[in-house]
Amino acid sequence: MKKLVAFAVILVFSVSAFADFPTSVRVTPPAPKFTDAERQAELARRRSEVAAKMADKSMLILFSAEPKIYTNDVDYVFRQENNLYYLTNLKQENATLVITKDGATVNEFVFLPNRNPQFETWNGKRYSMDEAATVSGLKTVVSTDKFKEFIDAVKGKQAFAGGIVPQTVYLLLPKSEGDNDGEREFRQESEFARSLTGYKIENAQPIFADLRQIKSPYEVKLLQHAVDITTEAQMRAMTMAASAKMEYEVQAEVEYTFRRRNADFWGYPSIVGCGPNATTLHYEESEGPVTPGNLLLMDVGAEYDHYTADVTRTFPVNGKFTKEQADIYRIVYDAQEAVAKAAKPGVTMADLGKIASDVISDGLMKLGLITEKSQYRTFYMHGLGHWLGMNVHDVGRYGVPLKPGMVFTNEPGIYIREDALNYLPDTPENKALIAKVRPAFEKYKNIGVRIEDDMIVTDTGVDWLTKNLPRKLEDIEGFMASQKR
Amino acid sequence: MKKLVAFAVILVFSVSAFADFPTSVRVTPPAPKFTDAERQAELARRRSEVAAKMADKSMLILFSAEPKIYTNDVDYVFRQENNLYYLTNLKQENATLVITKDGATVNEFVFLPNRNPQFETWNGKRYSMDEAATVSGLKTVVSTDKFKEFIDAVKGKQAFAGGIVPQTVYLLLPKSEGDNDGEREFRQESEFARSLTGYKIENAQPIFADLRQIKSPYEVKLLQHAVDITTEAQMRAMTMAASAKMEYEVQAEVEYTFRRRNADFWGYPSIVGCGPNATTLHYEESEGPVTPGNLLLMDVGAEYDHYTADVTRTFPVNGKFTKEQADIYRIVYDAQEAVAKAAKPGVTMADLGKIASDVISDGLMKLGLITEKSQYRTFYMHGLGHWLGMNVHDVGRYGVPLKPGMVFTNEPGIYIREDALNYLPDTPENKALIAKVRPAFEKYKNIGVRIEDDMIVTDTGVDWLTKNLPRKLEDIEGFMASQKR
Repeated sequence: MKKLVAFAVILVFSVSAFADFPTSVRVTPPAPKFTDAERQAELARRRSEVAAKMADKSMLILFSAEPKIYTNDVDYVFRQENNLYYLTNLKQENATLVITKDGATVNEFVFLPNRNPQFETWNGKRYSMDEAATVSGLKTVVSTDKFKEFIDAVKGKQAFAGGIVPQTVYLLLPKSEGDNDGEREFRQESEFARSLTGYKIENAQPIFADLRQIKSPYEVKLLQHAVDITTEAQMRAMTMAASAKMEYEVQAEVEYTFRRRNADFWGYPSIVGCGPNATTLHYEESEGPVTPGNLLLMDVGAEYDHYTADVTRTFPVNGKFTKEQADIYRIVYDAQEAVAKAAKPGVTMADLGKIASDVISDGLMKLGLITEKSQYRTFYMHGLGHWLGMNVHDVGRYGVPLKPGMVFTNEPGIYIREDALNYLPDTPENKALIAKVRPAFEKYKNIGVRIEDDMIVTDTGVDWLTKNLPRKLEDIEGFMASQKR
Repeated sequence: MKKLVAFAVILVFSVSAFADFPTSVRVTPPAPKFTDAERQAELARRRSEVAAKMADKSMLILFSAEPKIYTNDVDYVFRQENNLYYLTNLKQENATLVITKDGATVNEFVFLPNRNPQFETWNGKRYSMDEAATVSGLKTVVSTDKFKEFIDAVKGKQAFAGGIVPQTVYLLLPKSEGDNDGEREFRQESEFARSLTGYKIENAQPIFADLRQIKSPYEVKLLQHAVDITTEAQMRAMTMAASAKMEYEVQAEVEYTFRRRNADFWGYPSIVGCGPNATTLHYEESEGPVTPGNLLLMDVGAEYDHYTADVTRTFPVNGKFTKEQADIYRIVYDAQEAVAKAAKPGVTMADLGKIASDVISDGLMKLGLITEKSQYRTFYMHGLGHWLGMNVHDVGRYGVPLKPGMVFTNEPGIYIREDALNYLPDTPENKALIAKVRPAFEKYKNIGVRIEDDMIVTDTGVDWLTKNLPRKLEDIEGFMASQKR
């Protein structure tokens, strides 16, 4: 017995001492827990920062999200409007938050429906007024019985419950006239704004964009948990991909992990594309075959308590990159590394984007896929990344220098779409170009690689929220080999 | 070796010969496959039946579903509007079907966006005009480049492309003024209807309701597949429930099965409630603990190619019903059996509802939970069932006699909600009633049981689409025991 134990110890030692790669799926650590006092303090701080940005004699009104219809009388599972959730943590429909500011006096209250046993028999528990106060830390919770009175008071420029008649009303509104997404998301706010006269109407979105762009330690814990769930999902997918026949089987494994770890679910529809399908950026069908010899691109993100991860790995179904796949992979990897090394406070996303496209265009030149550096857009057609938080494409200004607490995705990619050379304008120059790159193109076509990690800016650089997920080519191969039984 | 094999054979034999219950999870059979010709014939038949119901000199316009926003720039995965899908099988956004009728002349065409390589690089493949024609069987596919011209022609009472100027325009519209779901689902249709003058506007919904209420053999195959996926999901959940700590872990298993078997996903949010949570009819949170000794109620339905199952099982987490749980379960089971035995062409859902409530009120009387039969509504507060098809609460008239091809759910239930006796009006009669039933109530409280099966009306009775899923108390216990290793 003793000998056997000693042997086992040596074996474990030899794996962990010489392997960079993890040799088992990393199980998601327990979810972060906050006390009532911690949560209430965090939410109170956020609300006071919002109030500080409001004009004098003003009122902010945040409606809860509208339920989204699936078909007929079925709705999607309710998801609260992000900014209302950011200030209250209330998940319920028909909640409305009001903050008023009058000199140094800030008042805040939330409307909520009364509890109703018959409603709850059908649809589940509603907050009592006390529970809502405990969740949100708001001291004043008002029944929606008074809601019409409040709306009428605002419309009629009357005081409600002894409060102020503001000069300015803040509402979440579309960003501009052509903002289709905003018009869909903030339909009721827009209609309400149009029904008001005699006020200065301000869009509340910039206030929240500035605040939410810097994540608090409280928020980072939630975001890290979403990333951890996603890390486990990606590792589980790598472990089972060789046995899958269809893309949706791998997607099933990913989303099983999300639900199993109590994620809200996803922050965006999962992208699971094998072979040529990896060259479509937002491929959502998952109806293609999973074939050994091809790469599988998985761009997936669990959402936990309203915070979403956004993580892409591209790996060979059979665990081993071909020469051509490795050529492309290493360029993308190098671009991502170069970005991470350069990222720190003061640098802009545009600076980082330039670093990534330089590495990629150099690499594509070396492979013979382009003849001039500026042509890289044919194979790397998206930006380097975006802010990440309560939205996968989170609020926040671009063009500003990075600051500690900002979270962004670092996601270069190369996509050799089968038809990429078919749509260039028919000029002698393009004909010559096509003739020149054709041999390399034929070698690399249908390879799509994206590597995407979630980075938080620190005082001196960045931390990788995704650091536990194999990323280096050798680590992915090592991890996948370790999973084969 | 020989002896061992012989022993194994006997063992297998003994289980399969004497057990009524299945002893392993039933894997979903392959999805139904249809040839292009079969699909085109089916869709053509449906369109011609719609046209037959249209008035002379009329036009039907079906818009595709609007994408539903999740948050910011993320949409839910697109789901086509049911009636458009019913007539075309086209899954794409911005499809519009037009059918015109002028005496014996019926014309039909569909607008679709042109293919666009840049769009497809980002969002995946679109139908070519040929592919759309192959999918739908429609001979005329028109580019959406012409769509504005068409809309202007309709608004201006002009002919489009040599077609008719109709007197009547059919659109999918809300059922009535207060139809909130309809107003949300058919917002663009309602707006369009308001923009028209000089036409008779007709709601197209009744035409589809009558047609879709009778399922064709083609539709039944799809519905059966959705039920089969759901059957596997329920069986897998029964197999793993004892090892689950939280409701969402069981939900993960169910929805894993849906995705793994290439379901669209669900037809409605999964309901997975343990113990007291089983007494909330539409409990969607899945945040409660799974505890041995309690019942787990799972009301879940995979959707496959737009057809949804709707299946409920209630089973003991540890595989063994308590005396009290069994008392309640058997009443619900008997009610369901009585309904199934009585169901046949000519009978109405109201007749069947009466049969179920009679069995349930008798049972509740015997258990001492009510003192008069009419009181059963305290513990069985929903209807017996509903039509099932492309919606979980499918279109179709109520009050009509059953006909072959109609599909309905048979789903009696009893829910002893902990607070059920707290809200009766404070009268001497109710006080006496409460005093009388209190002992039984204390014994049974927090037990919730629903059993729901999907039935199709045949020439002489009904078939159970859900027949492969254990339902009888002894079969559930037997199946769960067979799964313990």
